[in-house]
Amino acid sequence: MNLGKIAKALGGRVVGDDTIDIDRPVEPARASGPGDLAVAIDKAAFRSLKDSKARTAVVAEGVTVPEGLLEAYIIAARPRTALAEITVIFDVPVERPTGIDAGASVAGDAKLGKGVTIGAGSSVCAGAVIGAGTIVTENVTIGDGARIGKGCLIHPGVRVAHRVVIGDRVILHPNAVIGADGFSYTTPKQSNFESAKLTGRIESTNEELIRVNSLGAVVLGDDVEVGANSSIDRGTLKDTIVGPGTKIDNQVQIGHNVQIGKNCMICAQVGIAGSAVIGDGVVLAGKVGVADHVDVGANSVIGAGSGLHTKVAPNSIMYGYPAMPMTEAAMHWTHMRRLGDLFKDVEKLTEAAAKNEEGKSK
Amino acid sequence: MNLGKIAKALGGRVVGDDTIDIDRPVEPARASGPGDLAVAIDKAAFRSLKDSKARTAVVAEGVTVPEGLLEAYIIAARPRTALAEITVIFDVPVERPTGIDAGASVAGDAKLGKGVTIGAGSSVCAGAVIGAGTIVTENVTIGDGARIGKGCLIHPGVRVAHRVVIGDRVILHPNAVIGADGFSYTTPKQSNFESAKLTGRIESTNEELIRVNSLGAVVLGDDVEVGANSSIDRGTLKDTIVGPGTKIDNQVQIGHNVQIGKNCMICAQVGIAGSAVIGDGVVLAGKVGVADHVDVGANSVIGAGSGLHTKVAPNSIMYGYPAMPMTEAAMHWTHMRRLGDLFKDVEKLTEAAAKNEEGKSK
Amino acid sequence: MNLGKIAKALGGRVVGDDTIDIDRPVEPARASGPGDLAVAIDKAAFRSLKDSKARTAVVAEGVTVPEGLLEAYIIAARPRTALAEITVIFDVPVERPTGIDAGASVAGDAKLGKGVTIGAGSSVCAGAVIGAGTIVTENVTIGDGARIGKGCLIHPGVRVAHRVVIGDRVILHPNAVIGADGFSYTTPKQSNFESAKLTGRIESTNEELIRVNSLGAVVLGDDVEVGANSSIDRGTLKDTIVGPGTKIDNQVQIGHNVQIGKNCMICAQVGIAGSAVIGDGVVLAGKVGVADHVDVGANSVIGAGSGLHTKVAPNSIMYGYPAMPMTEAAMHWTHMRRLGDLFKDVEKLTEAAAKNEEGKSK
Repeated sequence: MNLGKIAKALGGRVVGDDTIDIDRPVEPARASGPGDLAVAIDKAAFRSLKDSKARTAVVAEGVTVPEGLLEAYIIAARPRTALAEITVIFDVPVERPTGIDAGASVAGDAKLGKGVTIGAGSSVCAGAVIGAGTIVTENVTIGDGARIGKGCLIHPGVRVAHRVVIGDRVILHPNAVIGADGFSYTTPKQSNFESAKLTGRIESTNEELIRVNSLGAVVLGDDVEVGANSSIDRGTLKDTIVGPGTKIDNQVQIGHNVQIGKNCMICAQVGIAGSAVIGDGVVLAGKVGVADHVDVGANSVIGAGSGLHTKVAPNSIMYGYPAMPMTEAAMHWTHMRRLGDLFKDVEKLTEAAAKNEEGKSK
Repeated sequence: MNLGKIAKALGGRVVGDDTIDIDRPVEPARASGPGDLAVAIDKAAFRSLKDSKARTAVVAEGVTVPEGLLEAYIIAARPRTALAEITVIFDVPVERPTGIDAGASVAGDAKLGKGVTIGAGSSVCAGAVIGAGTIVTENVTIGDGARIGKGCLIHPGVRVAHRVVIGDRVILHPNAVIGADGFSYTTPKQSNFESAKLTGRIESTNEELIRVNSLGAVVLGDDVEVGANSSIDRGTLKDTIVGPGTKIDNQVQIGHNVQIGKNCMICAQVGIAGSAVIGDGVVLAGKVGVADHVDVGANSVIGAGSGLHTKVAPNSIMYGYPAMPMTEAAMHWTHMRRLGDLFKDVEKLTEAAAKNEEGKSK
Repeated sequence: MNLGKIAKALGGRVVGDDTIDIDRPVEPARASGPGDLAVAIDKAAFRSLKDSKARTAVVAEGVTVPEGLLEAYIIAARPRTALAEITVIFDVPVERPTGIDAGASVAGDAKLGKGVTIGAGSSVCAGAVIGAGTIVTENVTIGDGARIGKGCLIHPGVRVAHRVVIGDRVILHPNAVIGADGFSYTTPKQSNFESAKLTGRIESTNEELIRVNSLGAVVLGDDVEVGANSSIDRGTLKDTIVGPGTKIDNQVQIGHNVQIGKNCMICAQVGIAGSAVIGDGVVLAGKVGVADHVDVGANSVIGAGSGLHTKVAPNSIMYGYPAMPMTEAAMHWTHMRRLGDLFKDVEKLTEAAAKNEEGKSK
């Protein structure tokens, strides 16, 4: 693809020879041959251009490219989304022949839409429904009565359990598990953790853990993405829900009954305990933990590693373990760093006071 | 199923028409049609009944249902376990035809009990033994010489490695891994982490990591449950053991040689490092980390996100990173919140002392 | 195998009868029969010998075995590596018949080296290359154009995505995922997390999350090991790289573009966010989180549960959330424990000062 065509796709324009053929987009430092298009849209990447062997580049509107630095370059009209657009242009999407692979196992009453692929080693159970154009790759399991929308991409090893409902254009990454049972037990008598909560002491033991079954399912909205090795549990009396457009990274755990809004970003290794409610547009950074029944207001941003134990208002920025408003957390850490000085100050004051007393008693 | 039969199963009684047919149990807010049985056993759910469209409900012994609020209701005799019992009544258990699916691969010398199911795409390796009534669903792997008890349910994608031993009625959720090798290496010379521990400085590098193989296996007791994407490593010279009745949530990591007692609850994303010992009835809340060789006494409850680095006595309640007794942790956080005031107090005292000194020197 | 032969393999010597036949190595406390070889190399194990029923043992050079305690014992010449060597002697390696199992699915243009095994239910996609002697066990997926070296062991349920490159002698544990897409999105306008970073307030919402595709792959060096349920994402414009000899435990998450050096130890449940750089020989203990773009210098040791948000120099020892140098962290916790006393001291000083003022004003 030549520079001119790429520029057109990016809604941009070429400065220099627009017929140069491009093989791949690269970081400036890795540019070597003439087919390497240096992606220098953000400031750091743009600065690194001058030390690179790049001969062509994509830059943001408004920068000044030194004379003679490049043979030609594209000025991207939409710098914020240009990288995403470039990765669409050069992506080699997963392709599979449509139809059912000879090594797949599909129940007689499953309903497959037009152009569906079922890969080798995959199982589609009784009553499952799969929408047109959806690619089920290899070694996937689709449970009884599951319903999957159109244009989805189900990577190898994904487990979609019975009666789970999945929207259109959903991407499920390898070994993700949608619809395992919730982790819910009760004890015939007071449990040790109830005792701990009520009295601050352990006054009972758990002689029997009685299982609460999960009658609900999981519902994923359109355009949801679920990362590798993530798991989303089914609900007890209702469905666990993930709203449309929400993106879930790898190794995320979402408990039973959880309700997640639309366009959220749930980063890797986040854990959301049972019955928590996550508003629209919430960002949970890596390793955040949300306690059970906690409500996280819309558009809130929760910093990496935070532990949320209580309700959070919409538009909050929280950080820490336990999580507190970001401004408090910053103050907290300033205090912590000055704590050594504080001990010294108090020591001095105590000594001075003692000397004072001594002086008086003389 | 009508109200009368449900009441009987719950050991309770019906107030009103016991012939009403019920389709499904629901949270009060979701009750709409006449077949929706509102589950209003706990206080919050009971309070929400009055704002719901529920016409039938299950309530706890001792509450007063306002006249005319419901057409009929069940008073549950055992409120603590009633929800669990309701979910048993309405559950639609996983069902599979018994026998070996045509798409499964079973070694000639594997021994399958009566009524065993082996689903499509599953592999049972040489010498494996599977007890009567156990359901191995799709895409499961059972390693060489593994022994699985009776009445187990092995969900899709589970990996049971060679020589692992599993009790009766065990439930393994999708993509759980039982019996991967432990993470254990040694270095011919002092490693950098040994140096860090001994001297507080890094005085050596790791030029070679020599693997310690795992000769032991994993043993899971009866009635154990292991969550989706969880992993339990085999032991080095002995087996890693999980006691009967212990429930393990999703994405839990249990290291080599770990010994876990009976009836524990290990919540999601907990990590237990090698050779730790967890007593009977211990509750580890979500994301708890237990360091290697640490001993957690029976019935202890460890709060979410805690990091346990040292031995914990039985019946302890611990919280924090690093974990401390709950009462200390609470005090700690009270102190933290008052730290700003403390800085101000000390500043005032320092100023006053300076003024004092100034006064004296005049 | 008799004691003499074991001693020879360990480069050691036997004291006593070297013809005694050994069945298995055990911890001293578990020794019962004559075939049990007590492994008593480290100090604690050696001390426990005297309370055991062990009749044979392996001990370290330099210890004094009491007369009559054992029938015979091996003195290991290389105590640091003796356990590893013993586990090699007694290991029962995974064995599979070479060739393609009837239940496997291998693309016509895939290239398999000499002595390769492809197990039941495994899929090898178009253009994949697998080196001589590599064992692909059951239910594994090897993506389009993936290249795997010689002598690797790929455990059940592993997903190797398209174009991933894997060195020689690599071990991938069950359900590990190599080469899922990175978690990378952009928004057409300022996102809420950008707003949070820039202004400390949420002044925008995420109305659309635009996907950045992952054009890069993953490259694993020789002798790398990746644990069960771990995931390593492919890069955006370049490959995600794990250097030779690096060992990765279970449930580790490695983000897109991450570059990891050689001989690192990455313990269970560690998360490394996108574009982080980990130097040679680094040890990340369990549950460590490394923020995106953070650079961790060679040979550094990071304590369990730490959260690294900023660059770390080589040879650092860090601990805490947020992580700080170990010495500071220790000081920090000393301060924390004495904080209650500090409050009391300041209270006393304040009271004394007030009394003083009162005295003056009289």
